[in-house]
Amino acid sequence: MKIYETKLAPNPRRVRVFLAEKGIEVPFVEVDMMKGEHKTPDYKKVNPLSQVPTLELDDGTCISETLAICRYFEETNPEPPLFGRTPVEKAHVEMWQRRIEFGLMMPVAFFFRHTNKMMAQLEQQNPEWGNQNKDRAIRFMKFFDRALEGHDFVVDDYYSAADVIAMTTVDFAAFAGLAVPDECKNLKAWHARVSARPSAKA
Amino acid sequence: MKIYETKLAPNPRRVRVFLAEKGIEVPFVEVDMMKGEHKTPDYKKVNPLSQVPTLELDDGTCISETLAICRYFEETNPEPPLFGRTPVEKAHVEMWQRRIEFGLMMPVAFFFRHTNKMMAQLEQQNPEWGNQNKDRAIRFMKFFDRALEGHDFVVDDYYSAADVIAMTTVDFAAFAGLAVPDECKNLKAWHARVSARPSAKA
Repeated sequence: MKIYETKLAPNPRRVRVFLAEKGIEVPFVEVDMMKGEHKTPDYKKVNPLSQVPTLELDDGTCISETLAICRYFEETNPEPPLFGRTPVEKAHVEMWQRRIEFGLMMPVAFFFRHTNKMMAQLEQQNPEWGNQNKDRAIRFMKFFDRALEGHDFVVDDYYSAADVIAMTTVDFAAFAGLAVPDECKNLKAWHARVSARPSAKA
Repeated sequence: MKIYETKLAPNPRRVRVFLAEKGIEVPFVEVDMMKGEHKTPDYKKVNPLSQVPTLELDDGTCISETLAICRYFEETNPEPPLFGRTPVEKAHVEMWQRRIEFGLMMPVAFFFRHTNKMMAQLEQQNPEWGNQNKDRAIRFMKFFDRALEGHDFVVDDYYSAADVIAMTTVDFAAFAGLAVPDECKNLKAWHARVSARPSAKA
């Protein structure tokens, strides 16, 4: 088995952190997106949408989409459980995963892709749209900050896949120029807490 | 237990179809978004992001985000399994669910919200962005059509949550003015197949 990824892209890091928390080692194959390696016919056999990461199993079965790759490893290597331990916890992990993806990751990605000069070669940029999303991302950070009040982790006091997604997203937001506002004390304390785990270096 | 929803919105229908396939009946409470009922302090206690649907359990626990609500019922009522039966199938259901959400649902929603006059009161419209997403949605339909070649359902020959999400999304696209192109024969045949199931009326 192997995972095709681009080391610097934000989505592959989710999988690396998730695997580090599970204690699973999988060989990685680097796909250089800036050289267009994700658009070659060979890579399109692995992932017709030209996205990274993609997991290829030994029998040739391919699984793409970060959360789907994580789900596969949750099923094959259940300990420690990262998608929740009870029906309510599983639902809350998924609820927060989705809130963070739609409420923060998408706005940050739109802001980055539509306003950053580096992305002009990959995207038909619409700066007005990019800047609308900047406000949306900051609003979400303030909401997320209030929700973290009194909790060690995103879902109560249980470290889960929702923390993995939130940490990698907050780090990507900072890279894209959207740092957490100083007033978000709970969010900053949570970020320091999850960033201190060995998995954060993955 | 009860589910707050808005009958005409596309996301609540996902949950209704999912529950119909499981044979589960839950009382629904209508939230009239056009009257702003999703923005009242009472509803914000149930869902601070003012979204529908939200599941409220008898002990007051609230679960929002359609897929998280479906996940809760998959855990409490496992038969028939709709999120996959094996690790690979579970990963492929999640992969397709995400491809459809990011590749089709988001573009259709952006096209609708940013170009439809009905939505002008709810959205700061950017028609250029809306129209870029029209092309993206149609391109995804053609990709999806090729992927369905030789399959009865989205994931091989197994009816799953991916079919629920794809059907409700294709129906919402048609409502938004983005019908499936005539050349997409596999997609049209699949859509007729899933729409013939009693759950499609939910």
